[in-house]
Order: sequence, then structure tokens, then C-alpha cells
Amino acid sequence: MPTVIPADSVGLVTPQIEAFDQPLDLEGGRVLEQYELIFETYGQLNSRKTNGILICHALSGDHHVAGYHSLDDKKPGWWETCIGPGKPIDTNKFFVVCPNNLGGCKGSTGPASKNPKTGKPYGPDFPIVTVKDWVQSQARLRDRLGIKQWAAVIGGSLGGMQALQWSIDLPESVRHAVVIAAAPKLSAQNIAFNEVARQAIQSDPDFVQGRYMENNKVPRQGLMLARMLGHITYLSDDSMREKFGRELREGKLKFGFDVEFQVESYLRYQGRSFVDRFDANTYLLMTKALDYFDPAQEYDQSLTRALSRAQAKFLVMSFTSDWRFSPARSREIVKALLDAEQDVTYSQIESAQGHDAFLLPIPNYLNAFSAYMRSVAREVCD
Amino acid sequence: MPTVIPADSVGLVTPQIEAFDQPLDLEGGRVLEQYELIFETYGQLNSRKTNGILICHALSGDHHVAGYHSLDDKKPGWWETCIGPGKPIDTNKFFVVCPNNLGGCKGSTGPASKNPKTGKPYGPDFPIVTVKDWVQSQARLRDRLGIKQWAAVIGGSLGGMQALQWSIDLPESVRHAVVIAAAPKLSAQNIAFNEVARQAIQSDPDFVQGRYMENNKVPRQGLMLARMLGHITYLSDDSMREKFGRELREGKLKFGFDVEFQVESYLRYQGRSFVDRFDANTYLLMTKALDYFDPAQEYDQSLTRALSRAQAKFLVMSFTSDWRFSPARSREIVKALLDAEQDVTYSQIESAQGHDAFLLPIPNYLNAFSAYMRSVAREVCD
Repeated sequence: MPTVIPADSVGLVTPQIEAFDQPLDLEGGRVLEQYELIFETYGQLNSRKTNGILICHALSGDHHVAGYHSLDDKKPGWWETCIGPGKPIDTNKFFVVCPNNLGGCKGSTGPASKNPKTGKPYGPDFPIVTVKDWVQSQARLRDRLGIKQWAAVIGGSLGGMQALQWSIDLPESVRHAVVIAAAPKLSAQNIAFNEVARQAIQSDPDFVQGRYMENNKVPRQGLMLARMLGHITYLSDDSMREKFGRELREGKLKFGFDVEFQVESYLRYQGRSFVDRFDANTYLLMTKALDYFDPAQEYDQSLTRALSRAQAKFLVMSFTSDWRFSPARSREIVKALLDAEQDVTYSQIESAQGHDAFLLPIPNYLNAFSAYMRSVAREVCD
Repeated sequence: MPTVIPADSVGLVTPQIEAFDQPLDLEGGRVLEQYELIFETYGQLNSRKTNGILICHALSGDHHVAGYHSLDDKKPGWWETCIGPGKPIDTNKFFVVCPNNLGGCKGSTGPASKNPKTGKPYGPDFPIVTVKDWVQSQARLRDRLGIKQWAAVIGGSLGGMQALQWSIDLPESVRHAVVIAAAPKLSAQNIAFNEVARQAIQSDPDFVQGRYMENNKVPRQGLMLARMLGHITYLSDDSMREKFGRELREGKLKFGFDVEFQVESYLRYQGRSFVDRFDANTYLLMTKALDYFDPAQEYDQSLTRALSRAQAKFLVMSFTSDWRFSPARSREIVKALLDAEQDVTYSQIESAQGHDAFLLPIPNYLNAFSAYMRSVAREVCD
């Protein structure tokens, strides 16, 4: 059944790949001799190359941010809500670039890629990559595209952390940083949830110390558990209540261990379908990048000092019911920016949808985001 | 190294066992032909038998609530904070009874017990038991002790739910109900966490469809994951921050998958040590009892109608940072009690310690609890 592509979509899109042969020195001390990044672009780069926007994805995201790969696609890219003609990130005005992160599993070099040294998949030998490493790897893609300064670097959750790190590590390259539903570093509770997810994956006998591909196995149960757990933290208690309440799957209690409540059925479905489209080693890497993110660390633990380097203007957004990265965490970023005498706009959006809100069409959110991006467009568009 | 037993402890205690041969009709439709309950008692039953207190335990609790089993014990019972001479539940005044719940793994009949029909452990054949079933099974213990009415039925978390159910199912048997850090039923989020824990246990290859004992196996990884996850929900984000912050286990980042942050080390330790003292099938049963608890269900979904039956007076307590069963959930109970024109005292305690607070020596908590229990003592003591 072919999709009718809506008029406000970027339409049919095709990913591109760039290969980089210069070794990349990683924060953890190891070196990646070569890597590829898969990415998509939407809109047109203007003649002065000032209207480029970098979208950074979160834990399970990828480079397919908007539009459709074919008329048979059931769903568009993951941020279709915010990217397209007339949308907050307006592709009539901006040239939008989104790579799959290094270490990913959707086409950029990662644990599932062939290790040129062994001819086998990297698996657990793929190095740990950090948010700083992503910034460096993405900077090379920017160079290839001939862009000196992004009009904006934008991301939600782990994507927002990349936007923040870009503004600190490559200050002259970022005109605006849009940091949505993020935090300046993970809390102990955040790390704890990640650790349970990792333990679930690593203790699955089919994980085979990360060499499951060579062994023709998939750590399905572990990855499914990790995703189920993640999913709970993306939703708010309220949104789960609204979505499922205590509805029974079959209308009455069965007093057994099969699915009883709708929420159980939903989580199992989410977990299972994730396994078919995501790589366990990549999931481990992404949670580690989250844990390690702490831009203040290089600056005597002072986020203010770190952000003093930035030359960007900032838009920080948070959602009231987000308990994964609560508004209080966004306000820590805002406070550090103000203390660093930076230009920051903060928007706290009323929403019951938890962390997932940043992906959803919430009118106040889209309006605030659009207003900010219109002012960015006025600065940079020809 | 022998413990010096503090003067305000009940001291050395010895569990007792009562066997019940009359079949118990369970809410799920099955019948338990016979069962045993292990329990401890502290203090003296008065001549009129009016000073009996029933303590109901939570998910991983047991009958060893206070005191020491031997001078070599490193730790006292799990609610030593609240039970003993001069403590809120004052053993100089009250006769305190605490059984291990049916389906438990500390001495009462449960999945690890021998099934008289097969001579093997029940394992997964042990029936699902509910909070209502526990009330019925505990009522028989009360009869054996010759007690007509408990001075109070008291519990925290799942224990508080039992106190609530006692007040509804056997109204004439409960003079006071003390319901601490509980909820009138689980939210979808609560159920979701339980479901992830169950999936972790059930997907462990060493679970063997629940027949791990017969197969000389233990689903260690699954039970460990379940406990790690549970532990996160018992603590608040703040208390984890205070306890661990982002402290590194070895002072510097290692960029690998071994333990990196203190909180990971703590959780792994908690998970591992739990496996040595708890049974996986019991864990599954307890989470199901939590999921199913919904006393309003029998009364046209009206908690007010359910609680209208009660003859008890109520003390409801909650803790501000408890996000597992938040103060809002306790206030639902209080509102239903007020709507039912019942006598209720509500105390919301400031605390950063999350759900675990009900086990901790928080002065405002102990003071409020003590004051209430002194008034109970004045009513019932000789």
C-alpha cells in the first residue's frame, strides 16, 4: 500500500555515504584508522553555505530523520514532526544534514562493520566512542560539505548533548545550538538504568562476549529487555496511565504469567520489534557515550567555564513530565550559560508525554521552536 | 564477632511455624490443600488479647522483622528501626506478629516447598496468590493465636496494601490500619517495571520454565537484573546522587564495559547478594500480587465503596521523594477514606530517600508513627 506523501514532507530521500581515511584519535586513547558516515540531507545549501543545519540523533536514532525512502515506507524519518517545508526546521530555508553516529548500526562504521584488520565484524573490538569523538567525526563531514559554520546544531536527548559539545569544542563552527530534553551529564539514576540495560544484554548467553554475529546469534532477550526498560523511562507515569491505564489485554484476569495488562503487551512488542532493527553492541556503545558525557570535566568540573568558550546562541527546551532528563537538568545548562554571560533562550513546555515529547507534535513546542528557527533563518539565509 | 544487642532491640528471637490443613480457596480459582506459615512474635499478648499487631511484609521482606537470630547475626530484622522497646511499635506494649507470606521463600509454603502431590518442589506449579489470599491465610494464623481483633495491621509498600485489604475484607478484625508508602493499585508504570523484572527472570536460560530447582540450576542473571532494577525504583534520583554522585570506582575513566561508576558497582553487588537469599519463583509471585492488587475492583471500581466497609481507623503515611508509590498515590487512599467518612490521619514526610524511606530512621517519621501508636496503645492495653 503506497504512502501518499504529505505536502509538508521532504518527500523521497536517499542516504549518502562519505568515507574518511585519516585516522581519528578517540577520547578513550584508541585510534580508528578509517570510517564511513552515512547521512541524509534535505533542502539546498545556499551559495554562501551559511544555512547548514546539523541534526544529531539520540540513542536509538539514525540518519533517516525526515521523509521517506520509498513509496512503500509505512513511516517517515524519526523527526518528521520538526523537519520539512514550513516546519520548525524549514527545508525551504535550511540545508539539513544528519549523519548516523560513528559506532551506529544503520550504515556508519560501527561494531557490525567489517574490521579491515581481521575481515570479520568488529563486534566488541570496536572502540568506545564518546560525544566528543562524534563531534570530531561530524566535523570532517562538515568539511566535506564545504560548510564552515553550521547555522545551527540541533538535537534532543543524547542529540542535545552533542549540540552542547559542538558549541564547546568547535565554538567558531556553531552559530546556534538547540539543546532539547537533555542534561549537562547523567545522574547516578540515569547511569543505573543504563547499567541494568547493559547487564541485560551482556548476560544473554547469545551475546557471546559481543561476538554474536560471527556465531550467527543475536542476543534477542537481552536487547529486548534493554529496550523495554528504556521505553519506560521515555514515557511519563501520566502518559502511560493515559495510554494503557490498567486495561487488561483480554478483558479479565487470568492469574498466570502470560500478558495480562495492555502495558505488558505494548512493552513486549516494542522490545521485540527493536531487536530486528538494532545492534546490541551499538546499544552498549551508545549507553556508554551517555554515561561518559560530562563537558565540565575538562574545565575543572565547571560547566560555566566550559560554556564560556561557546560563540553560539542557545535555545534550551525541556518538557514538564520528562523524568529521564527533567526540566531541572535543562535549567542547570541554562544557569551555566547565564553565568557564562551567553545568549540563551529557555522554553519549558507543558506536556504529559515524558521524554518522548521532543518527538511529538505538541503545538507550544513546535511554535516556540519555529519562532526561534525563523530568527536563525533571518540571520543566515541569502 | 558477636553482635552486642542494643537495649532497644527485641533481642534474640526464634521463628515459629504453624501448619494449616484446611484447604484454602484462592482468588485465582485454585485451591491450596495445606500450607504452613513461618512467623515471629515479639512482646506479650495481654490477657484480653487486644494488643496484637500484625506486620505485613513487602516484596522481598520476610517474617524476621526485628531482633537477632543469633549473637553472630550481622544485621537485625528488616524493620528494627520501628519495632522494639520504646520504638514506634513498642514491644513493651504490643504483641507483634509477622508471618512470611504464602508463596514466600523464607519458610512459609511457597514455590520452593515440596508439593505433597509430586514430592518435588512446586516450582511454577505453585498457584498465583493475591493480597486477598494473604489476608485469608493470615486470618487463620490470627485464629490460632486466639486473637479476635488486631490492635493494628501495619505495613509499608506491598505490606500497606495488605493492611488496606485486611480493613476491607475482615473489617471487624482490624482496629487500626497503618498504610505506609503504598498505593490503592499499581500504575501502568509500576506494572511495566514489574513486567521487565519478570521477563528478565523468565528469559534466563537457567530458569528452565520455573523448574530450575529440579534441574539444579539458579536463574542468577535474571534475578540479579530484576533486583537491580527494583533497587533503582526504591531510591530517589536525589538519594542516588547523594550516595554515589558520578564517583568513579577507580578514580579515572577506563573506557570499557567493566564497572566504571560507583553506582554500577553498588547495583551489581545488591543484585548478586539478593540471588543468594531469594527465590526467583517467589519474586515472580510477589510482583504478580502487586500487579493484581486493586481492592476497588470488587466494588464497581470505587475505592470509596470498598473502604466504606472498614471499621478501622487509619494512619496513612508517604514520603516526598518516593516515586515508586508517590504521596499522590497515598492521597488517593486518603481521599477515598474521607469520602467514605472514615477516620484517617495522613502524614506526608519530607525525605530525600525515596521509597526506601519507610525502612529508615527519619525523625519526623518515627515521631509521627510513635505518636499514633501511643494512642493505639492507650485504647487497647490493659
